[in-house]
Amino acid sequence: MKYPFSDRVLSLKPSAIREIFKYASDPSVISLSAGNPAPEAFPVREIAEISAKILAGHPVEALQYGVTEGYAPLREYMAQYLKERHGIGRGFDGILITSGAQQVMDLAAKSLLNEGDTVLCEEPSFIGSLNTFRSYRAHLRGIPMEPDGMDMDALERALDEERDVKFIYTIPNFQNPTGITMSAEKRRRMYALAKRHRVLILEDNPYGDLRFAGEPVPAVKSLDEDGLVVYAGTFSKVIAPGLRVGYAVAPRELLQKMVVCKQGEDVHTNLWAQMVCYEMMAHTDFDVHLARLRGVYRKKAKVATDALDRCLPPEVTYLPIQGGLFFWCTLPQGADMPEFCRQAIRDRKVCVVPGNAFLPDEAAPCRSFRINYTTPSNEKLTRGIELLGGLARDFLR
Amino acid sequence: MKYPFSDRVLSLKPSAIREIFKYASDPSVISLSAGNPAPEAFPVREIAEISAKILAGHPVEALQYGVTEGYAPLREYMAQYLKERHGIGRGFDGILITSGAQQVMDLAAKSLLNEGDTVLCEEPSFIGSLNTFRSYRAHLRGIPMEPDGMDMDALERALDEERDVKFIYTIPNFQNPTGITMSAEKRRRMYALAKRHRVLILEDNPYGDLRFAGEPVPAVKSLDEDGLVVYAGTFSKVIAPGLRVGYAVAPRELLQKMVVCKQGEDVHTNLWAQMVCYEMMAHTDFDVHLARLRGVYRKKAKVATDALDRCLPPEVTYLPIQGGLFFWCTLPQGADMPEFCRQAIRDRKVCVVPGNAFLPDEAAPCRSFRINYTTPSNEKLTRGIELLGGLARDFLR
Repeated sequence: MKYPFSDRVLSLKPSAIREIFKYASDPSVISLSAGNPAPEAFPVREIAEISAKILAGHPVEALQYGVTEGYAPLREYMAQYLKERHGIGRGFDGILITSGAQQVMDLAAKSLLNEGDTVLCEEPSFIGSLNTFRSYRAHLRGIPMEPDGMDMDALERALDEERDVKFIYTIPNFQNPTGITMSAEKRRRMYALAKRHRVLILEDNPYGDLRFAGEPVPAVKSLDEDGLVVYAGTFSKVIAPGLRVGYAVAPRELLQKMVVCKQGEDVHTNLWAQMVCYEMMAHTDFDVHLARLRGVYRKKAKVATDALDRCLPPEVTYLPIQGGLFFWCTLPQGADMPEFCRQAIRDRKVCVVPGNAFLPDEAAPCRSFRINYTTPSNEKLTRGIELLGGLARDFLR
Repeated sequence: MKYPFSDRVLSLKPSAIREIFKYASDPSVISLSAGNPAPEAFPVREIAEISAKILAGHPVEALQYGVTEGYAPLREYMAQYLKERHGIGRGFDGILITSGAQQVMDLAAKSLLNEGDTVLCEEPSFIGSLNTFRSYRAHLRGIPMEPDGMDMDALERALDEERDVKFIYTIPNFQNPTGITMSAEKRRRMYALAKRHRVLILEDNPYGDLRFAGEPVPAVKSLDEDGLVVYAGTFSKVIAPGLRVGYAVAPRELLQKMVVCKQGEDVHTNLWAQMVCYEMMAHTDFDVHLARLRGVYRKKAKVATDALDRCLPPEVTYLPIQGGLFFWCTLPQGADMPEFCRQAIRDRKVCVVPGNAFLPDEAAPCRSFRINYTTPSNEKLTRGIELLGGLARDFLR
């Protein structure tokens, strides 16, 4: 049988990260390629206690079908919490619980993109989201990154030049893969540009709460008086990703379309997980949990930084971070980065993600690769960076 | 802000069922409109015990990111189980764990349908799936239902007449909304027609295990020597729907595309729920559970049948059932069914689903409505049917 695939999937390739993720299950390989949060920060005891309470007290509510919009107590709590803590949400906004923040990207894309429409995105950016946009046959235009976020002059040029721009996609805090945080000034300018050009902003903020140093920068959504911003949040990094619970805060008119799309995708999100998130947020001391979690990340990032400083030859640079999951390392001019990554996995048994996986055009030149420091143990993390450093010295000789 | 919605969502309306579902939360309304399985059949004690065991023994595995294809022990167990019990699966097939069977419809549609492609479906059929196909801008052609399933002559005509038919969508057991089961002979003929015309079959089987009378009919997928059938199964009806765990058995070449689409939608399905399903299947006596569940459904269906026989005027007919969740009732020639359903909710506070919600063309004439007997208590079920009977007598006077 020759399968009559749709044009959209014929143009899609499996995510390079998730393919590498499979290598990572070889126990002899040290994987610095995942996007996994630190498992030692999972509130395991709390989740076990909450789960027992839910299944003893409200089993049918947790196990029966629910409404597509999400578990009402969680929606109400989060709407209040995001407003009080982050200034997120106005009278025109609603909240939708999703199956991870990835589903926000999917539902927003499905609700907004016709074939050939343009999405402006950071270059590099998160491959999972880029592939979602590609699956609706969007045209992706990358906006180069600077140390304080997207190049706003380049964004302005792109808005002038491109037709049918539907939205700007940004990960403003500890961006995946670069770790860069967009400055408050750039956030304001981006918002003003979006308003002037009547395009939306899709703000993806999985890492904002993982800040272990420096001062938080207000969310783009906190500026939104005009109904221009779709904000995607998630419990994957602050509670646990296996739960698959995220949320969108967006103008209700847009959210209604996303709800219709979600009905057709998975009806609603796992209810037990929604109830666990609600109980964690509302009935445990979440600030204490976040403080503990940030402590875990701070320590682990220090281990990584010490190893990077000790092991990498000076020609290999990396961006310092104040939070998030990733270090972005760059080889010197002329170095063959994809070959470096291949040798890393093949000859040194250490796995990193080649940076071109994160480009709108994967074939474009790139000298950077991404390191995740949160998944491996401290020993493996240190050993993995030592191996990379050894390879780099040989490779650049 | 005027939102620049995609053409696909502009043509979609919220599901009539899920809108009615909201009415159903008014405590003074008796809802016979849900598609919910009987909560008294949920294995609550087992789930609570399994959950505690998972969170004590393997918390990080349950809470960390997993692979898109699904929890490996569940995939392996189900592949074996479906092969042994139902003759489902050949060497060319694989299995993908999804977020409910609804996601199988979505991923298959996304992988196969270009705008304007044709899906042949039973008429009436499950609105959730029809809306999923609509969301990829498919052309739906309905094949009339007979008491033993789709009219095969009409199917053959449609295959001859329609261009770009990508698949036939069928719910062969206790179909939603009619409760009809397709005969073995028709399944063979449908398979032969699909093979001759080189089109796929999407077999949606949420209700097959809910048979409380009569003999099971082999799955269409059990005939599949040619890689033509995508089989969608789910734990929603045999364990609990709030878990949102389903699965697809399909040729690996097609499944790979579905995996790529799932990466972009929700990365993977909630892991705790996948582990609960695995433990329920592999380490409890699932046959005993199914037997108990069928007993619940048999008794409840008897309550409904007794009430229908006692309360409905003879001009209102219904199809007898041997399993599943629904009764399909039909008003006499000339009756205004939508008005009947409106009066039921408005004047009698009892909620059923108007049959035209299930038609490829919702504006087409229809005299039937759907009753769900599994969600309400026996008292509410009886009272609801009494109210419908009373309305029918007044309405048809």
